[in-house]
Amino acid sequence: MATTDRVREILGWYGSDSPGTLTNLSRLLSAGTLGGTGRMVILPVDQGFEHGPGRSFAPNPPGYDPRYHFQLALEAGCSAYAAPLGFLEAGAREFAGQIPLILKVNNHDVLYEEKDPIQATTGSVKDALRLGCVAIGYTIYPGSAHRLDMYTKLRELAEEAKQAGLVVVVWSYPRGSGLSKEGETAIDVTAYAAHIAAQLGAHVIKVKLPSGHLEQAAARKVYEAQAVPVATPAERVRHVVQSAFDGRRIVIFSGGPTASDAQVFDEVRAIRDGGGFGSIIGRNSFQRKKPDALKFLGTIMGIYAGTQK
Amino acid sequence: MATTDRVREILGWYGSDSPGTLTNLSRLLSAGTLGGTGRMVILPVDQGFEHGPGRSFAPNPPGYDPRYHFQLALEAGCSAYAAPLGFLEAGAREFAGQIPLILKVNNHDVLYEEKDPIQATTGSVKDALRLGCVAIGYTIYPGSAHRLDMYTKLRELAEEAKQAGLVVVVWSYPRGSGLSKEGETAIDVTAYAAHIAAQLGAHVIKVKLPSGHLEQAAARKVYEAQAVPVATPAERVRHVVQSAFDGRRIVIFSGGPTASDAQVFDEVRAIRDGGGFGSIIGRNSFQRKKPDALKFLGTIMGIYAGTQK
Amino acid sequence: MATTDRVREILGWYGSDSPGTLTNLSRLLSAGTLGGTGRMVILPVDQGFEHGPGRSFAPNPPGYDPRYHFQLALEAGCSAYAAPLGFLEAGAREFAGQIPLILKVNNHDVLYEEKDPIQATTGSVKDALRLGCVAIGYTIYPGSAHRLDMYTKLRELAEEAKQAGLVVVVWSYPRGSGLSKEGETAIDVTAYAAHIAAQLGAHVIKVKLPSGHLEQAAARKVYEAQAVPVATPAERVRHVVQSAFDGRRIVIFSGGPTASDAQVFDEVRAIRDGGGFGSIIGRNSFQRKKPDALKFLGTIMGIYAGTQK
Amino acid sequence: MATTDRVREILGWYGSDSPGTLTNLSRLLSAGTLGGTGRMVILPVDQGFEHGPGRSFAPNPPGYDPRYHFQLALEAGCSAYAAPLGFLEAGAREFAGQIPLILKVNNHDVLYEEKDPIQATTGSVKDALRLGCVAIGYTIYPGSAHRLDMYTKLRELAEEAKQAGLVVVVWSYPRGSGLSKEGETAIDVTAYAAHIAAQLGAHVIKVKLPSGHLEQAAARKVYEAQAVPVATPAERVRHVVQSAFDGRRIVIFSGGPTASDAQVFDEVRAIRDGGGFGSIIGRNSFQRKKPDALKFLGTIMGIYAGTQK
Amino acid sequence: MATTDRVREILGWYGSDSPGTLTNLSRLLSAGTLGGTGRMVILPVDQGFEHGPGRSFAPNPPGYDPRYHFQLALEAGCSAYAAPLGFLEAGAREFAGQIPLILKVNNHDVLYEEKDPIQATTGSVKDALRLGCVAIGYTIYPGSAHRLDMYTKLRELAEEAKQAGLVVVVWSYPRGSGLSKEGETAIDVTAYAAHIAAQLGAHVIKVKLPSGHLEQAAARKVYEAQAVPVATPAERVRHVVQSAFDGRRIVIFSGGPTASDAQVFDEVRAIRDGGGFGSIIGRNSFQRKKPDALKFLGTIMGIYAGTQK
Repeated sequence: MATTDRVREILGWYGSDSPGTLTNLSRLLSAGTLGGTGRMVILPVDQGFEHGPGRSFAPNPPGYDPRYHFQLALEAGCSAYAAPLGFLEAGAREFAGQIPLILKVNNHDVLYEEKDPIQATTGSVKDALRLGCVAIGYTIYPGSAHRLDMYTKLRELAEEAKQAGLVVVVWSYPRGSGLSKEGETAIDVTAYAAHIAAQLGAHVIKVKLPSGHLEQAAARKVYEAQAVPVATPAERVRHVVQSAFDGRRIVIFSGGPTASDAQVFDEVRAIRDGGGFGSIIGRNSFQRKKPDALKFLGTIMGIYAGTQK
Repeated sequence: MATTDRVREILGWYGSDSPGTLTNLSRLLSAGTLGGTGRMVILPVDQGFEHGPGRSFAPNPPGYDPRYHFQLALEAGCSAYAAPLGFLEAGAREFAGQIPLILKVNNHDVLYEEKDPIQATTGSVKDALRLGCVAIGYTIYPGSAHRLDMYTKLRELAEEAKQAGLVVVVWSYPRGSGLSKEGETAIDVTAYAAHIAAQLGAHVIKVKLPSGHLEQAAARKVYEAQAVPVATPAERVRHVVQSAFDGRRIVIFSGGPTASDAQVFDEVRAIRDGGGFGSIIGRNSFQRKKPDALKFLGTIMGIYAGTQK
Repeated sequence: MATTDRVREILGWYGSDSPGTLTNLSRLLSAGTLGGTGRMVILPVDQGFEHGPGRSFAPNPPGYDPRYHFQLALEAGCSAYAAPLGFLEAGAREFAGQIPLILKVNNHDVLYEEKDPIQATTGSVKDALRLGCVAIGYTIYPGSAHRLDMYTKLRELAEEAKQAGLVVVVWSYPRGSGLSKEGETAIDVTAYAAHIAAQLGAHVIKVKLPSGHLEQAAARKVYEAQAVPVATPAERVRHVVQSAFDGRRIVIFSGGPTASDAQVFDEVRAIRDGGGFGSIIGRNSFQRKKPDALKFLGTIMGIYAGTQK
Repeated sequence: MATTDRVREILGWYGSDSPGTLTNLSRLLSAGTLGGTGRMVILPVDQGFEHGPGRSFAPNPPGYDPRYHFQLALEAGCSAYAAPLGFLEAGAREFAGQIPLILKVNNHDVLYEEKDPIQATTGSVKDALRLGCVAIGYTIYPGSAHRLDMYTKLRELAEEAKQAGLVVVVWSYPRGSGLSKEGETAIDVTAYAAHIAAQLGAHVIKVKLPSGHLEQAAARKVYEAQAVPVATPAERVRHVVQSAFDGRRIVIFSGGPTASDAQVFDEVRAIRDGGGFGSIIGRNSFQRKKPDALKFLGTIMGIYAGTQK
Repeated sequence: MATTDRVREILGWYGSDSPGTLTNLSRLLSAGTLGGTGRMVILPVDQGFEHGPGRSFAPNPPGYDPRYHFQLALEAGCSAYAAPLGFLEAGAREFAGQIPLILKVNNHDVLYEEKDPIQATTGSVKDALRLGCVAIGYTIYPGSAHRLDMYTKLRELAEEAKQAGLVVVVWSYPRGSGLSKEGETAIDVTAYAAHIAAQLGAHVIKVKLPSGHLEQAAARKVYEAQAVPVATPAERVRHVVQSAFDGRRIVIFSGGPTASDAQVFDEVRAIRDGGGFGSIIGRNSFQRKKPDALKFLGTIMGIYAGTQK
């Protein structure tokens, strides 16, 4: 597949990466329905680990089978499929070469709940290579007392991944005793979380769609003094993207708490209009019947592609 | 021994493993009375370490001798014998090649009791190789404050084991301050524990036979909304197996607190009927006289093989 | 560029360093407007990580773009540009060879605030080499309960950096529960912080311009008994420089809390008159429009060069 | 020296060890007065580290000199001499080849006293090799909150020692907040401690002569139900030896609190009659004048050899 | 320089060390005014790190310059100069080959004060080698809750140092919550601290001149029962030397709290008369004008050499 101008433009932002890493980043940007547009929709399925299998897959039992998600991502035209070690091991041979894979190399469960969370390291760069992945994925929790350990570990893995020509995708999820519940999705905190991920060397950054709340007093003062526009979802997306090296890093979004598909589509329009690079959509896609999921994901991709309003 | 269709089918689920690991998994599935059926009964003897030698072996003193258990497993037609380093070192030369061995590479004692347990690393992949084992065994405690460290360590050992062509067997035992006592064997927790082990790359997963209790509020809500069938032991086995990659990982069960052999046999029937892959039976076998143990294990294998009701 | 006598004199203080490290130190001392004078002005931009992107860049939005700071440092004639991994990765190819770079290899954010701070390791010596840097930068927090771990880690990185021919720049910032708020910039504490950095092997040491406060009772007693002159800013600068091996290590200063440019210029005069080696000026330069920043930095360099009063 | 049948029998229990390790074990079993009998008396001198030099050596000042203990062990016909790094370094050249040496590779002092003790690592396998030792010695504290870390470390060192052809001697001393004071020498706890050491791969296990106390409720229940004979010292020795792989591991004993030589000799008779493999006797030998010590040790060896009643 | 009989005698005590280490130990024993006598006076200058530069050098400001101390040690005829990394780096080229150097590889500051102190690792064996040192120096704090970690780390560094042919000098300073203030210099504790250092493999041990206080009840009982002579300073020195392998390890002393030079000289006479090997004298020498210091140190060396009373 020929690389589009837009993809080449994006690759141009990563001037310190090797041709190997750019090759894999190009694969990520060229796969699926949105391939070549500079937008992406990723299917992540780590909820079995994060929330438990019943809560994740009982609503649509074919999802218990790891192969289901490879197939769903493929049929839906997703840009990539992201999952923990076991789920990728269980389908990587069968689906080899059919869709870019992202190995989620750390995970957390909820059988014990901490005020200041951290994750277990559950995969390695070598695992990613033997499974044919284009990227590793890593979660950090800015706001947790353990965040610095996570940053340190991420950078070590990122250095190793870059040496192996892999892309680094960072889930930057503010959580922990440094933040109020509302602060976890505050616009200042989300922008900060995206910036930290970029500074740690992430190629692709995943954050939650932020609210208009301003969490930190020192930040609020500046946002108000400088009249930073964060009133609408699109403005907030724009600010987060700006905070990730002025738009020179790929930032994608997961939904906030949503009540209906219409609201999701509105959020996607806000991401698109604010200059976001796409969505990462898990539960909303694999927890419904496959035909519904395909239609749902098709609509989202249409919005990004401009073929849907 | 020729590999059966069923064994080849099972091996087919492990598409990311090397021929070396598949060879050892095939040995595990082809040994003993149930060899080739896709079912297995494993004899584990780590109770000396876990509970003390008196509590473990005084009821049947020949069990103090490490060779006794090799011999018992062999005569009973077990699929494998699992034990800590010392016990395997003490018989591996004498019984070399006679029965598949699993080196339990972490252990715990009860001379100090913690609210949030963890285990000591008591064996290595190199130990397993020099002792001629087909697999390493590792215990995790989902629910413990230290669980993430255990997941991280397991994955490291699993990566090394897979590189050496060994099979990875995970004892997934929910325990710790994240759970109520009843929650340790709750169906939602057991299914979750099996899923975590699978995501961490286990080939064979060992859990306790779950009760019908639902521990986590968020899980209960889904189980009730989706009417997940967990009323009978067989349904619960089926749900746990489903939670381990929709049946594409080998899940075996140890008994709950049992009062009589008849109850054990009923449990085995439930495991069989629910699609479980077998049993791991320690104290119930080595704490009775050998002839009784052989008869007892023979009955269990008969139930799995279909030669007993 | 020919090395000046002053630069050769300074290089002479580092008798245990390799020609490789001296070459990079010479580059640092020879670049920009002040090149060859033995003075330096460094542009550091880690505030995005340390305080958040909004607080850092909203006042002058072009600063969201990492390339802006390379360009600013270059146009202003700075001696070097210092930043975390991500910021350097985003411009190192475009600006390769145009200005000496310092990779800040540890960082801290304020999404969680600790009484006894420590930093995350966010870059490596290998990163510095692949990005073409002349130096690594590392922050220590004397006064924190975790300071000894930071000293230990710094020395490890410094040893590795020296073996690779890199310069080691240490940000020595007293903080933590061992000190009062006022004590963080006390003259005795600042001198102590500079000395510790020098003992740990730093080539260049960055401290805050100290106040006249004396924090530690045992120190105060000696300062008073020996009548150590610390009444004026210039005297305090002289004492700090003296405390860093009697002036045989490069010590540079960041401003204290300042109200106006005039005050900054006064501070710079004090640094110059006290024998300080220069300034490191972040927010005061990149948070204003570029023309203003160039003028502001030009004035500072003029004061050091003696072309301005 | 020709290996006796009994020594060959004992070597036969260690089927997983290399000829190198068996060679050193054979040296241990063949040295001194009891050489070839399968019994051993070891002189350990780590009390200087464990209790301080004054408490240890003031009663017999020649013991301050490290060479004294080599000489004492040699003249007394001991099977081996065990000591920390410094003490062995100070005599290993002078006494090279004259008596088997055991390097104690961890130690503890009493200048700080913890509820849950652990030890410092004070020697390495490489140290043992360069000093010509036949074995390393390692202490674990079952019952301490830190026991699992000690087990993990022991196994690592044991793996390395076995690769180097060394013997592993484990001092298994129940202590810590998991146990009552009386429980430290309880028969159930001592048997458990011996079993853990065996499971961790020890070749030789050293425990204290146990009392008849039963510490753990769950154990007491079984001991009483099974009528395990633990009424006399000899029965208790027999039970501990049984707990260490049914007598297929070498278990030696140190004395309990003793009031007279007669009592020590009674204890030795109990060890002999219960099937114990010997004694490890420190303070009782080096804290008396050498002629007395030689006579005292001679009597003990005579009891083991059967030349004394 | 020909090695004297006394030096050869001392080298003979270190039978497990390599010729490389003996060569460096010989250099230490052969340098300066006391060279060849078996006595030594070392100049240590780590007070800048330990107490701050003002407290250390303001009384004699030339001491801010690292070269001053090399020069002072050289002119005074000291046996060696000991300092942290930075101070040695700043003069090692200029003074190469002129005086034996000891790299102090751990350090502590007082900007945060702990009840149970530990030190930062601030230098490596490789550093010592590249700076031309004959030895590394390491501080342990017996009595601190962290002492075991320090012992473990010391032994690792000592093993590496010995492999590199370096001498190991241990500062054994009882401190921490295991001891009363008075106990830090108690005779039983000091003797214990010296013994621990020797057991950990130290070649040269540095302790404080002890008081007659007995800290530990169990020790006091033995000291009293055995009538260990510790009434005079010389007797206490003799007991400490005896506690370090009966005088077969080099033990040197730093002063207690002293009021006058006369008292220091009395202490030195006590060290001499008690069989101590010398002194390590920091503040008392570099905090006075150089001519005074030379005279002061000259008197001390004269006392050791017997040319002064």
